[in-house]
Amino acid sequence: MSSPYPEPLLRLIEQLQKWPGIGAKSAQRLAFHVLKAPREDAERLADALRDVKTQVQHCSICANITDADPCTYCTSPDRNPRLICVVEEPANVIAVEKTRDFRGRYHVLMGTLSPLQGIGPDALRIKPLLARVATGEVEEVILATNPTVEGEATALYLAKLLKPLGVRVTRIGMGVPMGSDLEYADEVTMTRALEGRREM
Amino acid sequence: MSSPYPEPLLRLIEQLQKWPGIGAKSAQRLAFHVLKAPREDAERLADALRDVKTQVQHCSICANITDADPCTYCTSPDRNPRLICVVEEPANVIAVEKTRDFRGRYHVLMGTLSPLQGIGPDALRIKPLLARVATGEVEEVILATNPTVEGEATALYLAKLLKPLGVRVTRIGMGVPMGSDLEYADEVTMTRALEGRREM
Repeated sequence: MSSPYPEPLLRLIEQLQKWPGIGAKSAQRLAFHVLKAPREDAERLADALRDVKTQVQHCSICANITDADPCTYCTSPDRNPRLICVVEEPANVIAVEKTRDFRGRYHVLMGTLSPLQGIGPDALRIKPLLARVATGEVEEVILATNPTVEGEATALYLAKLLKPLGVRVTRIGMGVPMGSDLEYADEVTMTRALEGRREM
Repeated sequence: MSSPYPEPLLRLIEQLQKWPGIGAKSAQRLAFHVLKAPREDAERLADALRDVKTQVQHCSICANITDADPCTYCTSPDRNPRLICVVEEPANVIAVEKTRDFRGRYHVLMGTLSPLQGIGPDALRIKPLLARVATGEVEEVILATNPTVEGEATALYLAKLLKPLGVRVTRIGMGVPMGSDLEYADEVTMTRALEGRREM
């Protein structure tokens, strides 16, 4: 007997290990949890996995994930069509939405410029963004790419393309995160926090 | 709009959050991974989940998990039927099997005695163990319950029941784990290590 696991369990462990951050030990623990949990839980999870792949798509306007195209952000009359927030990934839309503060629309780039990995402007949804701005309906584009080397470079690149179109281009604020301790802030973040200081 | 997630994605995140050790953030990360990964991966995982619940059962002899009853450990002619290793959970069988040293059979208790949680002897597979030993075929029972308060209490309880049946009862060795540093050993483990010292 090569494996101590029954074959179906082994297959489940192998599939779970393909997930990011799930190693051999976690995969085994999760698989044993599935064994113990009610069958309906496994059924519901299996259904949810299938449904996500069959029902979720990218919005043809903003490229955010949606189960109806165009997505609710692009069609909602409650949202300001003159304000577009540009993010790298659909998950970043969630992060912005959780603030409940932003009532504009979105544009998902589906990545960042990364010459080392061969990701140039044509691999990202930059042209559709320029097209949206070129309609003249947009007043401000907030660049909310990540505060990383790639995210910064992408924001700079986009700003250069967008400004000639006569639109206001802004970048999200950077500094020390709320609830953190200055003791643990890295130098770059601390520098940005000083640069971004405001009158009280 | 109450949730920023498309409904199928929200359902997947909710199901994933039911798993042990998977919080809101991990569930979101895994769900977005499923969105990006090939559809076949999601299909295979969904199938594996269903198969585990439909094809994996408990062995009627030892209660270990198996896809054929009785399990291969109980039926293999290569395994010594006079030696039984008693463990708490099916996952513990895997841990013992990984040593490749044990060639006896198993008995899974499906838990430990835990009066505070209302788990008494009748909730565990103790009677079937006594029945297996009562056949007279068994020479030694290795108690490999966990080195915890409950595991120790269960081992003591079993030893008291088993010894009168004329069988040798042993407990797995306890001490400092291989590759560890004495500096980080707790007092109870260190005491056990001293008690369990052997001639070199």
